Amino acid sequence: MNLDYIIPNDWSILEEGFDPENIKASESLFSIGNGAMGQRANFEEKYSGPTFQGSYIAGVYYPDKTRVGWWKNGYPEYFAKVLNAPNWIGINIYIEDEVLDLHTCKKIEIFKRELNMKEGWLSRSFIATLQNDIKVEVNTKRFLSLDMDELGAINYSVKPLNSDASITFRPYLDSGITNEDTNWDDKFWDTLNVSHENNQAFIQAKTMKTDFYTCTFMESQVFIDGKSMIIDPNISADANSASFSYNYKVKQNETYTIHKFGGYTVDRNHDKYELVTAAKKVLEKATKAGFSTLLDNQKKAWAKIWDMADITIDGDVKAQQGIRFNIFHLNQTYLGTDARLNIGPKGFTGEKYGGSTYWDTEAYCIPFYMATKDQSVARNLLTYRYKHLQKAIENAEKLGFKNGAALYPMVTMNGEECHNEWEITFEEIHRNGAIAFAIFNYHRYTGDYSYIPEMGLEVLIGIARFWHQRATFSKDKNKYVILGVTGPNEYENNINNNWYTNYIAQWCINYAVENIERVESDFTTDFTRIMNKAKLSKAEIEQWQEVAERMYFPYSEKHNVYLQQDGFLDKELITVADLDQAQRPINQKWSWDRILRSPYIKQADTLQGFYFFEDHFTTEELERHFDFYEPFTVHESSLSPCVHSIQAAKLDRMDQAYTFYLRTSRLDLDDYNHEVHEGLHITSMAGTWMSIVEGFGGMRVKNDMLTFEPKIPQQWDGYSFKVNFRHQILKVIVNQGQTHFELEGHKELQIEVNGKSVMIAPNKLVTV
Amino acid sequence: MNLDYIIPNDWSILEEGFDPENIKASESLFSIGNGAMGQRANFEEKYSGPTFQGSYIAGVYYPDKTRVGWWKNGYPEYFAKVLNAPNWIGINIYIEDEVLDLHTCKKIEIFKRELNMKEGWLSRSFIATLQNDIKVEVNTKRFLSLDMDELGAINYSVKPLNSDASITFRPYLDSGITNEDTNWDDKFWDTLNVSHENNQAFIQAKTMKTDFYTCTFMESQVFIDGKSMIIDPNISADANSASFSYNYKVKQNETYTIHKFGGYTVDRNHDKYELVTAAKKVLEKATKAGFSTLLDNQKKAWAKIWDMADITIDGDVKAQQGIRFNIFHLNQTYLGTDARLNIGPKGFTGEKYGGSTYWDTEAYCIPFYMATKDQSVARNLLTYRYKHLQKAIENAEKLGFKNGAALYPMVTMNGEECHNEWEITFEEIHRNGAIAFAIFNYHRYTGDYSYIPEMGLEVLIGIARFWHQRATFSKDKNKYVILGVTGPNEYENNINNNWYTNYIAQWCINYAVENIERVESDFTTDFTRIMNKAKLSKAEIEQWQEVAERMYFPYSEKHNVYLQQDGFLDKELITVADLDQAQRPINQKWSWDRILRSPYIKQADTLQGFYFFEDHFTTEELERHFDFYEPFTVHESSLSPCVHSIQAAKLDRMDQAYTFYLRTSRLDLDDYNHEVHEGLHITSMAGTWMSIVEGFGGMRVKNDMLTFEPKIPQQWDGYSFKVNFRHQILKVIVNQGQTHFELEGHKELQIEVNGKSVMIAPNKLVTV
Repeated sequence: MNLDYIIPNDWSILEEGFDPENIKASESLFSIGNGAMGQRANFEEKYSGPTFQGSYIAGVYYPDKTRVGWWKNGYPEYFAKVLNAPNWIGINIYIEDEVLDLHTCKKIEIFKRELNMKEGWLSRSFIATLQNDIKVEVNTKRFLSLDMDELGAINYSVKPLNSDASITFRPYLDSGITNEDTNWDDKFWDTLNVSHENNQAFIQAKTMKTDFYTCTFMESQVFIDGKSMIIDPNISADANSASFSYNYKVKQNETYTIHKFGGYTVDRNHDKYELVTAAKKVLEKATKAGFSTLLDNQKKAWAKIWDMADITIDGDVKAQQGIRFNIFHLNQTYLGTDARLNIGPKGFTGEKYGGSTYWDTEAYCIPFYMATKDQSVARNLLTYRYKHLQKAIENAEKLGFKNGAALYPMVTMNGEECHNEWEITFEEIHRNGAIAFAIFNYHRYTGDYSYIPEMGLEVLIGIARFWHQRATFSKDKNKYVILGVTGPNEYENNINNNWYTNYIAQWCINYAVENIERVESDFTTDFTRIMNKAKLSKAEIEQWQEVAERMYFPYSEKHNVYLQQDGFLDKELITVADLDQAQRPINQKWSWDRILRSPYIKQADTLQGFYFFEDHFTTEELERHFDFYEPFTVHESSLSPCVHSIQAAKLDRMDQAYTFYLRTSRLDLDDYNHEVHEGLHITSMAGTWMSIVEGFGGMRVKNDMLTFEPKIPQQWDGYSFKVNFRHQILKVIVNQGQTHFELEGHKELQIEVNGKSVMIAPNKLVTV
Repeated sequence: MNLDYIIPNDWSILEEGFDPENIKASESLFSIGNGAMGQRANFEEKYSGPTFQGSYIAGVYYPDKTRVGWWKNGYPEYFAKVLNAPNWIGINIYIEDEVLDLHTCKKIEIFKRELNMKEGWLSRSFIATLQNDIKVEVNTKRFLSLDMDELGAINYSVKPLNSDASITFRPYLDSGITNEDTNWDDKFWDTLNVSHENNQAFIQAKTMKTDFYTCTFMESQVFIDGKSMIIDPNISADANSASFSYNYKVKQNETYTIHKFGGYTVDRNHDKYELVTAAKKVLEKATKAGFSTLLDNQKKAWAKIWDMADITIDGDVKAQQGIRFNIFHLNQTYLGTDARLNIGPKGFTGEKYGGSTYWDTEAYCIPFYMATKDQSVARNLLTYRYKHLQKAIENAEKLGFKNGAALYPMVTMNGEECHNEWEITFEEIHRNGAIAFAIFNYHRYTGDYSYIPEMGLEVLIGIARFWHQRATFSKDKNKYVILGVTGPNEYENNINNNWYTNYIAQWCINYAVENIERVESDFTTDFTRIMNKAKLSKAEIEQWQEVAERMYFPYSEKHNVYLQQDGFLDKELITVADLDQAQRPINQKWSWDRILRSPYIKQADTLQGFYFFEDHFTTEELERHFDFYEPFTVHESSLSPCVHSIQAAKLDRMDQAYTFYLRTSRLDLDDYNHEVHEGLHITSMAGTWMSIVEGFGGMRVKNDMLTFEPKIPQQWDGYSFKVNFRHQILKVIVNQGQTHFELEGHKELQIEVNGKSVMIAPNKLVTV
């Protein structure tokens, strides 16, 4: 595969020239989505070469029977798989009697693919010479509507260039599809009914086991040189598919075009018996408006998103393309309008990892959504976890905890754990801390305390109970210890006293207690309700506090740093710089035991704690820990470089910060980890956003106030971003030498810049 | 399932009464084998109830594609599966037109099953009333011949008790079989040819992938009231089976009998094109001799084994039955005549765990085979590992080791690793130590040093190199440490400085160096050959020694014991006695993380080291460590109680020793771990033998001399055992109060009893 074949451009992802080696990578990179559904950039027409077909519906999954080598007690029975849904984009093209297939054409010229991020559409154009020597020019454009999130639209044109040709468009629906990522080659879909009516077709299908009912639908219109035509299609249908054939004798240089409208209606939004009716309404509205009006609406909808979420970077096209690519995919994946949904690690671009929700959401995505959307979006994300609290309690019970202790799952779709590696599922328990931290972070940023008495406190109590029970008292140390964990650095398993885990456990207990006290004094009714429900006594709280107060933290007097875990200093401390480059990435070169006994860090672990709890430590302490741990960090997790970028910027190490920034923002575009064909790293894209806003912009919230310490890499002329802070929008423009602030709002906003207080009046440019 | 339904008896395993719940357990317990093949005690006639069918051929396996949840670098592609082989025992019985099937009979009376261990046969008898109201008495007897190890024989009689009946025997061969334990439901056998000739049938089949060629064969004879009959059978054959139907109108109270001879010829012993010819020779010999002569030979062959291997226990039938059951199954599994074979953990009684060779062989089985067989048998077991040295070096290379370092696999069939849990495959490296220890143990017991210059030294060098490279220098401790291991106690994973592992690593290096020096001085030619092959320099040896000399051992000053691993004292040290019984066995009740952070020990770990290196420590040290670790040991490994039994006996804690003895000897008979239906724990059976000979008998070898400290549980009147020591056989008879020795040999033998020297003259009873 060619890395780095994407052409730099401010607003688009561009590929020029047809290279079958890049097909799967481009299918990932050019993926489109609208929060409710999404799909890999598969071709509409037949493609017989290697391809990874994928179209996904938010919240529709399949519980695939767990596959393990050796079963351990407590493993979940099922792994919730992201589910390839019936295909509605397919349009087979017949030129005379030959099917158009880029894998078998004699010649392909001026192939070009564009993902226009500004306007939210995907296009392709090429000239192909078929085996029958007919040369055709093809232009396609496709988008998934933001306005009507059950709808997608395709404009597909074919122009014969060297002769007249009988051309057939054969749009189809197909529910006989498979998943790339299946444990047992199970069939995931049960097709219930295939029907058609006029130019419309519908496939009703439900998922096996989970019984999600869906209707996949389509309707097409055809045109010659832009003029609408009525062509009576040849219809064919079988148990899993329906297709219409629109044949026309196209003259040389005439353009034959099909507009295909399709998509899914699902029983999350409609009664399961009304899915066809709902689909008909969508199609009626779509065909009435027509492709070009729908496209105009699409541009407007994306303009609105960009108006709030865009980050501009001047003088560095690759950096600019990188950040927009990240922001674009985050918005394609999750728009925050439905509290039942969440942000899967691969979004709608692949199937790997399954599930929809990891700690990534709380640790990385929430800051992005808080600052670029209305704060209700972040609240929805918190509410999602509140709704799963009972399941988290049951999950903890399976592992022997009691009395309402909650352990949120490592990976989940419906609140149940669905991961199955003991060292992760049972031991990567720090995830519980991120869920509590997100509540703190939401309150810190939005000032909205109401979430805590309404919902959050119950979550905090369940989590505090978990940590209290999970810690054990070491007589030897005369302290509480936490044994057998995996920290954020997954290159250590089953370790004792992971500093990050112990620290966040202590913090969770203290934060829970602090909020119990505040709710007790300020929200009496809620307090009574919660205490009755949780059956929480003062005595129990005191036991928690005993654990928090006497928590053990491994520390090296010699190095004057907290140790990542017990025994870290027993390792052979050879830095990454001194490691043979041929050995990297170590997760592809080394056996697991070698990784584990090495000092190499997959992702920020101790430093992740310094990131979350920055104001608990001095800058000197940060610097010491950064200098100690960064040299051992291999950043083989997509979640690692952003934190290092932010901390390097804070420590005025701008070259390092810039390098980390490029690595996080172009991780997929430049395919650093050789895996982009499997899908994109969606959740870590929010980390890229953080590395600009929190890293270079130095933005923090302190005492209900935004503070900034703006810095700029020397490679850039300037950059700008906007944040939605407590219902006002602040635009920040950083140039070499000065920073401008502009407030879209109604009342003046006090901020702090480099430690100095600055008052920003609405709608005036303030330069610092 | 009913535990404990086996009727106590000195020489037989007996079951009375038909209980479908016990079928699978009995299929395991009554298994038969002859070292070359073996089978579960499946019924000959059809049985439509739940059953676990299994017939196994030594050395014939299938490399099943690895199944894991999450792949790790270095995992083997395949897991060598014990392979259910074509069925030759099947005889369907038709009474009039109804098939005899104990699952559907109207009534079953006086059902009895016997495994006669003294004579090596399995029998069944019962009276069944079929749905057609015909009542028949059935008697069967079956054995796998020790003399002709490709042959098995069945005697099956039916007598109609309440009417005349048309009875058909339909003996068949069937290669359309499946494995219980398969990862992907692959087909394991490829049937090449089904043929028949007169009363003989042959199925030639080869295993998929591994291409082991086999011929499964049969021939039958029928009798009425003991008189040979010539009945022209109805023959039928298809792609995977062949059957002959012998019909006869049997009068009431007449006995209709079939003798079926069958078995396997395999390409390990014959040219693959000569398997049918070889089978015909076996059948010719068998039918000429006839069932009863073959059975007589079987009795003689077993008498010979028992003459050497028997252990008698007076006054305790259950203990007597237990030890004979263990000795019997060990001999059924492995007779030591073929250096290409080894001792699988389930022998021929089940499929679980796969592979044929674990460290069990070296740590537990070799002492048994050394003392109860000619010493060539133990040498064969050592040679097996020598032949796998190159594969062990390749295995280490896959994990990043170099320069001829060898890591023997955790589980293997052909020398390649076939296990796939990272914490075991990559980290349970102490197995290398057991392989070196077995060489030491062999030399200590037999006095035969020749193995070391001929083969053993190369193995010791590969192992020493591994330990040298695997240890890392801790600047913090100024010692060499061994990070990230799993010790014999598999209830701890990825721990640092497991005392047992560090200790045996140090010992391996020292022992290798000691033997390099001895071979250099005494076996110059071998020395030159080995040094040239291994490219070993004095400088490298000095590096090994540096590691051995500066090895770190975790130690608690407070408790005055070596610690099982770093951080052991951080655990909540609640003893097993104080653990809620409802929580046990913890491996069935607790999630893995909970087991790992608990102090509970699956099997002797530190104490295993004290067992191997007993004379490195004082009895006081042993007692201190036994008192520290025993209270945390849950013995959920079959390999655990025997070591504790030996040490308890040494510490004069005879009640405890006796309890551990019963647990190890009747582990399967009383189904302590609720898993006997999966097969028997063959390798730990050798531990039972050790717990009598080394535990109660107190036998050791010191300075080329046998020493004894005989003790006897108060529950016993006496016990006796024999050991083959350096080509003479010493019988030891221990009664309450005195011990007798009797030497079958040619020259007097000096031994030590309770520290006093005793001279034993040949063929005279000496009482101490």
